[in-house]
Amino acid sequence: MSDAELLSAPVSPGGTIGILGGGQLGRMLAMAAARLGLKTHIYSDEKDAPAFQVCNAHTSARYDDEAALAKFAAACDAVTYEFENVPAAAAAVLARTKPTNPNADALAIIQDRFDEKSFVAKQGLKTANFAAMNSAEDAAAAFAKIGGPAVLKTRRLGYDGKGQAKVSSAEECKTAFASFKSVPSILEQFVAFNFEASVVAVRGADGKFAAYDPAENIHENHILRRSIVPARLTAKQADDAKSIAKKIADALDYVGVLGVELFVQKDGALLVNEIAPRVHNSGHWTIEACVTSQFENHIRAIAGWPLGSTKRHSDAVMENLIGEEAADWKALAAKDGGLHLYGKSEIRAGRKMGHVTYLKPKSAG
Amino acid sequence: MSDAELLSAPVSPGGTIGILGGGQLGRMLAMAAARLGLKTHIYSDEKDAPAFQVCNAHTSARYDDEAALAKFAAACDAVTYEFENVPAAAAAVLARTKPTNPNADALAIIQDRFDEKSFVAKQGLKTANFAAMNSAEDAAAAFAKIGGPAVLKTRRLGYDGKGQAKVSSAEECKTAFASFKSVPSILEQFVAFNFEASVVAVRGADGKFAAYDPAENIHENHILRRSIVPARLTAKQADDAKSIAKKIADALDYVGVLGVELFVQKDGALLVNEIAPRVHNSGHWTIEACVTSQFENHIRAIAGWPLGSTKRHSDAVMENLIGEEAADWKALAAKDGGLHLYGKSEIRAGRKMGHVTYLKPKSAG
Repeated sequence: MSDAELLSAPVSPGGTIGILGGGQLGRMLAMAAARLGLKTHIYSDEKDAPAFQVCNAHTSARYDDEAALAKFAAACDAVTYEFENVPAAAAAVLARTKPTNPNADALAIIQDRFDEKSFVAKQGLKTANFAAMNSAEDAAAAFAKIGGPAVLKTRRLGYDGKGQAKVSSAEECKTAFASFKSVPSILEQFVAFNFEASVVAVRGADGKFAAYDPAENIHENHILRRSIVPARLTAKQADDAKSIAKKIADALDYVGVLGVELFVQKDGALLVNEIAPRVHNSGHWTIEACVTSQFENHIRAIAGWPLGSTKRHSDAVMENLIGEEAADWKALAAKDGGLHLYGKSEIRAGRKMGHVTYLKPKSAG
Repeated sequence: MSDAELLSAPVSPGGTIGILGGGQLGRMLAMAAARLGLKTHIYSDEKDAPAFQVCNAHTSARYDDEAALAKFAAACDAVTYEFENVPAAAAAVLARTKPTNPNADALAIIQDRFDEKSFVAKQGLKTANFAAMNSAEDAAAAFAKIGGPAVLKTRRLGYDGKGQAKVSSAEECKTAFASFKSVPSILEQFVAFNFEASVVAVRGADGKFAAYDPAENIHENHILRRSIVPARLTAKQADDAKSIAKKIADALDYVGVLGVELFVQKDGALLVNEIAPRVHNSGHWTIEACVTSQFENHIRAIAGWPLGSTKRHSDAVMENLIGEEAADWKALAAKDGGLHLYGKSEIRAGRKMGHVTYLKPKSAG
């Protein structure tokens, strides 16, 4: 086989999938890989990552340890990530030797909120209005363009509401910018939406695309509380949501699962809020309600396998277990739901400790 | 807590389940435990057991290595098995220090086909007629009691048709007995049945009982080829099948999942053929068609957790992948089914390499 053929050949059963990141997403990816007879090697900067408990091999090293990264890649047949903020240098080291997906360009775009929104707009898709705010001097022009209320966000490294501030004037914009230590930021229009939805979709190494039915998401304190499937969308809106995900995945030449978060406006319009280049919390319900979960489909895609079906046989509600809620595991286990606990040794406030998925017979929706 | 309380306290998330046996059943048990945030320690006499790939710790040692067994038990919070032929001495070592289920008495009864059938008959349940054949001299009396055609089976250690011979005369009975090296055997009436069914059921540490819907099983060359749910049973027969499993589980004071294989006769009668004191191949469909699989329910039971629901949301057909069939993994992955490959490094004729479960919307049946 030529190098190109080798790189596109599927990973055979018995082969090893490398996963950068050892949290619950890496853990559930490893378990999905095991179902397919694939081995996993987890790389994490933690000493005792939850995913270490379910893999074949693990490396505990910093994400900038290029020697450790190279050794890890050498031990794997294909490499992927469980989180979006993979350092570009780390991704480059991995991609040098092994098929590494999602690809570095897609990661780079999504890691920067301004580049991400610019990319989405370039595809002809709707987003909230936005403007770059790279220095305090940009405040006046940015605020004039967007108007209030608006949200200032750091361009990089924000999650679960961290690095975000609501602002109602150019002055507040400046203050928030200073509180972010003046890192490059983006000012976004504050969108009055009806509810939030998300599409979890997958694109294979052969370019084939499939999407799960969109979920409706309820957040509390900037953390996902609950996902409900089906979402309150018309059939047309649901199709549109899947088409949005397809347009994004195709344009990024993406391989793997991605989550696209949408604001559903009162007039029915769908705005793209955020792209997650990984399996997504709002897709956990697919473990119970579909034959092929988002985790398995991600593994299939990055291993070069045919995609599994994304159709669902049931309606589903997924509830996150946050912080102390997981201490109620005995009561939760007695309910008629699919209980998942992530093997985290310490309960901390706001920490995702597990989730439960409840099924109902499929509605017409 | 007193010792008794300690022994009956549930294993908390983060605790360790010990599993004796490292094949596909141990592997799927370990994966089910991981979903609940439980760790697993696999003990196998193999050097490279499939279940080693998905556990937290493993011991590779002989099943008669009492020091290794004791060390293993010390590292676990509860212990169970994936196979029925656990040496009694090994079970005794484990049970001395840790809650070990299913219990040693249940194992001892089920390990001996004569004791098993005698136990079943004592519960007032139907079996094929049977007679002990402990020496060649028993042939005439046994054959006179049972009549032909009949099946001679070794009392212990048979599986997948090994240690079985069909006989039509006392003379053939003697010959078969000699071919079994004259080990204690049992002569059973050859039952003309309509089809085979099985019930997979679970009994909790608190004595609560739940059963999955019975499956219809098709064997080829004495190996399970396919399980179909629902089985072609009336509602009354399905209820009776579950009641049979309950009677057996209660009488054995059983904790964990058990499989009860049944012959469904032309007149509709259900004969108990065999009890499997473990998760059962005919229950693999529960991974896709139920929120709580047989594997998770076994872990819940032996860990002292509340049982999960055994209801199913879909009809299911489970196909075993035997020997070379697993080499077709790429074509199998492209079908709309739940594919499971067991991580066995070598394909061998007759070896169970994986399975696929196909779902359909639930029928009225």
